Amino acid sequence: MPDVKLLEFFPSPSQQPFVIEHVNEEFTSVCPKTGHPDFGTITVRFQPGATCVELKSLKLYFQSFRNEGIFYEAVTNRIRDDLAAAMKPIWLQVITDWKGRGGIRSRITATSGDVPADWRR
Amino acid sequence: MPDVKLLEFFPSPSQQPFVIEHVNEEFTSVCPKTGHPDFGTITVRFQPGATCVELKSLKLYFQSFRNEGIFYEAVTNRIRDDLAAAMKPIWLQVITDWKGRGGIRSRITATSGDVPADWRR
Amino acid sequence: MPDVKLLEFFPSPSQQPFVIEHVNEEFTSVCPKTGHPDFGTITVRFQPGATCVELKSLKLYFQSFRNEGIFYEAVTNRIRDDLAAAMKPIWLQVITDWKGRGGIRSRITATSGDVPADWRR
Amino acid sequence: MPDVKLLEFFPSPSQQPFVIEHVNEEFTSVCPKTGHPDFGTITVRFQPGATCVELKSLKLYFQSFRNEGIFYEAVTNRIRDDLAAAMKPIWLQVITDWKGRGGIRSRITATSGDVPADWRR
Amino acid sequence: MPDVKLLEFFPSPSQQPFVIEHVNEEFTSVCPKTGHPDFGTITVRFQPGATCVELKSLKLYFQSFRNEGIFYEAVTNRIRDDLAAAMKPIWLQVITDWKGRGGIRSRITATSGDVPADWRR
Amino acid sequence: MPDVKLLEFFPSPSQQPFVIEHVNEEFTSVCPKTGHPDFGTITVRFQPGATCVELKSLKLYFQSFRNEGIFYEAVTNRIRDDLAAAMKPIWLQVITDWKGRGGIRSRITATSGDVPADWRR
Amino acid sequence: MPDVKLLEFFPSPSQQPFVIEHVNEEFTSVCPKTGHPDFGTITVRFQPGATCVELKSLKLYFQSFRNEGIFYEAVTNRIRDDLAAAMKPIWLQVITDWKGRGGIRSRITATSGDVPADWRR
Amino acid sequence: MPDVKLLEFFPSPSQQPFVIEHVNEEFTSVCPKTGHPDFGTITVRFQPGATCVELKSLKLYFQSFRNEGIFYEAVTNRIRDDLAAAMKPIWLQVITDWKGRGGIRSRITATSGDVPADWRR
Amino acid sequence: MPDVKLLEFFPSPSQQPFVIEHVNEEFTSVCPKTGHPDFGTITVRFQPGATCVELKSLKLYFQSFRNEGIFYEAVTNRIRDDLAAAMKPIWLQVITDWKGRGGIRSRITATSGDVPADWRR
Amino acid sequence: MPDVKLLEFFPSPSQQPFVIEHVNEEFTSVCPKTGHPDFGTITVRFQPGATCVELKSLKLYFQSFRNEGIFYEAVTNRIRDDLAAAMKPIWLQVITDWKGRGGIRSRITATSGDVPADWRR
Repeated sequence: MPDVKLLEFFPSPSQQPFVIEHVNEEFTSVCPKTGHPDFGTITVRFQPGATCVELKSLKLYFQSFRNEGIFYEAVTNRIRDDLAAAMKPIWLQVITDWKGRGGIRSRITATSGDVPADWRR
Repeated sequence: MPDVKLLEFFPSPSQQPFVIEHVNEEFTSVCPKTGHPDFGTITVRFQPGATCVELKSLKLYFQSFRNEGIFYEAVTNRIRDDLAAAMKPIWLQVITDWKGRGGIRSRITATSGDVPADWRR
Repeated sequence: MPDVKLLEFFPSPSQQPFVIEHVNEEFTSVCPKTGHPDFGTITVRFQPGATCVELKSLKLYFQSFRNEGIFYEAVTNRIRDDLAAAMKPIWLQVITDWKGRGGIRSRITATSGDVPADWRR
Repeated sequence: MPDVKLLEFFPSPSQQPFVIEHVNEEFTSVCPKTGHPDFGTITVRFQPGATCVELKSLKLYFQSFRNEGIFYEAVTNRIRDDLAAAMKPIWLQVITDWKGRGGIRSRITATSGDVPADWRR
Repeated sequence: MPDVKLLEFFPSPSQQPFVIEHVNEEFTSVCPKTGHPDFGTITVRFQPGATCVELKSLKLYFQSFRNEGIFYEAVTNRIRDDLAAAMKPIWLQVITDWKGRGGIRSRITATSGDVPADWRR
Repeated sequence: MPDVKLLEFFPSPSQQPFVIEHVNEEFTSVCPKTGHPDFGTITVRFQPGATCVELKSLKLYFQSFRNEGIFYEAVTNRIRDDLAAAMKPIWLQVITDWKGRGGIRSRITATSGDVPADWRR
Repeated sequence: MPDVKLLEFFPSPSQQPFVIEHVNEEFTSVCPKTGHPDFGTITVRFQPGATCVELKSLKLYFQSFRNEGIFYEAVTNRIRDDLAAAMKPIWLQVITDWKGRGGIRSRITATSGDVPADWRR
Repeated sequence: MPDVKLLEFFPSPSQQPFVIEHVNEEFTSVCPKTGHPDFGTITVRFQPGATCVELKSLKLYFQSFRNEGIFYEAVTNRIRDDLAAAMKPIWLQVITDWKGRGGIRSRITATSGDVPADWRR
Repeated sequence: MPDVKLLEFFPSPSQQPFVIEHVNEEFTSVCPKTGHPDFGTITVRFQPGATCVELKSLKLYFQSFRNEGIFYEAVTNRIRDDLAAAMKPIWLQVITDWKGRGGIRSRITATSGDVPADWRR
Repeated sequence: MPDVKLLEFFPSPSQQPFVIEHVNEEFTSVCPKTGHPDFGTITVRFQPGATCVELKSLKLYFQSFRNEGIFYEAVTNRIRDDLAAAMKPIWLQVITDWKGRGGIRSRITATSGDVPADWRR
């Protein structure tokens, strides 16, 4: 069951603005409609406020979705909401890319806060 | 025959803005001029209003074009119009990429509403 | 000899703005200086006004350059001018990519009208 | 141990604005938590002020992190701070791409100054 | 020895704005410090004013750097300055991509004039 | 309905051994179990005996499977058997590559006769 | 728990030799040592004897490893043994490709019977 | 019109066996049935006997097919026969790869003599 | 210092022949001539006899080369000899791919025993 | 001028058979016919006898062709002959890949001795 308490944080090492991106290509949850597993890649990008998410705790948090029945859109919004509430980033973007089902592959993007100027390129 | 009544919708799981992209690499219709089949990839992107399109119903809707004689430009505008009317998204973009005919491959892009700021990157 | 009268047009199927891109990877003309053939890819993008170019007629128009002695820059501007005059698009972009000559490969881009907002992404 | 004194600089060859990018795909440091080596690619981009960093000295500076226990975020901010202090560039961007740990790969981006207009494209 | 007099020009075939890009993947010069050859790709992009550079003359100009001892940054600025002075383009961008030295590969970008609106995309 | 009478043949232009490969990336049939369309790529390789298959007739033959309910394995063996019987090649190989179903993609290879020595490489 | 009884079979549609390959990019099991999930791609190739494995039953069989603690080498040999015993193929090859752990990615190949002559190419 | 007299040859520089491969990605001829141009890549591989084909003459020979109406299979066998007769190689292989027509792309391979042992790899 | 005692082994899970491949893209040692670090990818393939190498112990063994001054050829032969002596495989192949030095990249392949028949493909 | 005396050798570190491959992507010489520079990639593979070629000396030897007028075929045979005479390898293969001239790119392969059994794969 997704468990936000698995997440740990450490103080940001700089007051200068910077951006962190973590990409997990090994995410799996379960389709609540069919009971079949879903497989996806989760990308988390953020400009930290006071804290950054610790990498191993992020892995365990992602693993806690393994046997959860949950739709693509809900996974994406839940991760965005959990991380935004716990980490209070200046900007946060969660992108989920899902392998094809019935010949259709999907990508969901959820954001909190404004995209930093130097990320836009 | 393309059948918009195949489409089903479910309530958006979040009031926070987010963007959904579905890519179907298995689209086929028929050229009304030559009677030969056309093959393409359909990309649908939208920022939902109150509802999202259900994935399996979207597949069946796409399959309903299988034996329809219809031009590239008309397919693209029809999908845009059908989804915009039924789903009332804040933003909707339909992109069709067609395999080559006579050495020329084509891409048509039709949009409804303004591109969300955080989609532009 | 390039022949604009080969081009045929059909009425745009929508009053909503949309963008069409045709890519021809099988273009050839002749270098007027050396007499050797040139090979390139021609990309035509446009937001239609009242009409769209018919695909097979576009192929025949491109084929009419086959034995014409004409420079890269002139091919590009000529296609832009021919299509702009005949089709009166809201926006038109012609890009030509040429295989290497003497170790240098070239790309020419000619535009007519303003890039549509939703094409910029 | 990371040693900023290894860095050498030479006067910028032009008063006209230009941008330099150096990419080092052979960076390694040590994870302070596990003691295992980390491997990454470091990209440094800058618009020079009066001086540019000398390439061989940059390599030796990067090599000085080899046996240092230091987190991803700290490596990135430290290189940004060291180069910004020593070179006083008009713009500086440091991007670190780290190979996967526990199935998660990471990218950190730290910037100093405004992105030059012609770099944005 | 780099020789700007090798460059030849022809009148631009159109008064409409357009952009030309030439990419030479076969550039070589010599490192003035080590005496070893450097290898790179030179990209020249410009919006012509009254004239365009002739392709074969550009090749010969590039070849004139073959046995010249010159740094990356100087090559880039020199080509930008030579072409800007001789061709008086509305916009000119020179990008040099250099194969790795000591595990570090480099890219230098030098510009003259403002990027044309339709090039930004 | 698959129709072998659509196939036409022409006399082989050489008595010297040679090999022909035709690749059709636009094949579709229907799953007899689910009624959903299947999409695949069909590769036909052969060393001709007295005749070669005519390309346009091969396209029409492939199109005749469009609304046929037939399994992957049966498609592959049927095409092999139809072509072997009609064309009497010295060697014939039919390979079908099917897009994923339920996360599994498949390739079926059926052969008639011995692989020619110079095809093995 | 891996369950061979999930597998179903159907009679081979041809007495002529042919080869079937199924690739599942969505396999996951659990490391018995660390308790962390493993992710891999499973390729099954066989020349059928009297029967072929049914595709949906193969998917369910693969899914039955989802929460099983089992090493790479054991997964590979178990699938080979289960399929060889149940299907009695003339040739069977099972290849497992595992995502990296500690910077090392692995591939295991287990075979039963002789490689068919026309598979070798 | 294809003209074998354009070909020139020079004495092989070595009595030791070696293999030469020339790849021309800019071949075009005309379909005798439709009158439309065909585009392909021609690969010529040979182990020389006493002579090698001169590169510029080979280009001119290929260009002599430009406006010839000739089928894929005939092009391939003709080039094989022309080069085998004129150059008397120990081994010669001609491979033609043709861009798609009606969704089908083709490759023809014609050989003269035995593949050299060290080419097989 | 390279330390073969770090390696641990476990009994092979099958008496049937199978092949294991481990690829480590994060190998580094030091050039004994220049003192600069070398970076490479190490591929180990083997058909086990009675035992298989344990994955984490293999990682630690590779890490023990981190600050060792040793040439490419010696690294490759040493790993082959260490693993062959300790694991007594039926077949063992060690391949090292090294990033470029002075514009030259290298690959060394060392083998012990005969390549298994079904590995040749 | 190509200078075989630049080559240095060191004793092979193993009596067990192994294979070394060096790839130089930065080779340039001059076409004796046109005076224009040629650019290529040189691959040298060998099973050493008593000695191996030292990497830096190989780089200098390759650089000695920089301003030499010499044909592709002669470069390839010369490098093969120079290395075979000086190093007395059990097997030696030299492959040169040349960038396109007049739309044709070339590869020359020259061998000395028999390909080792485990290199064939």
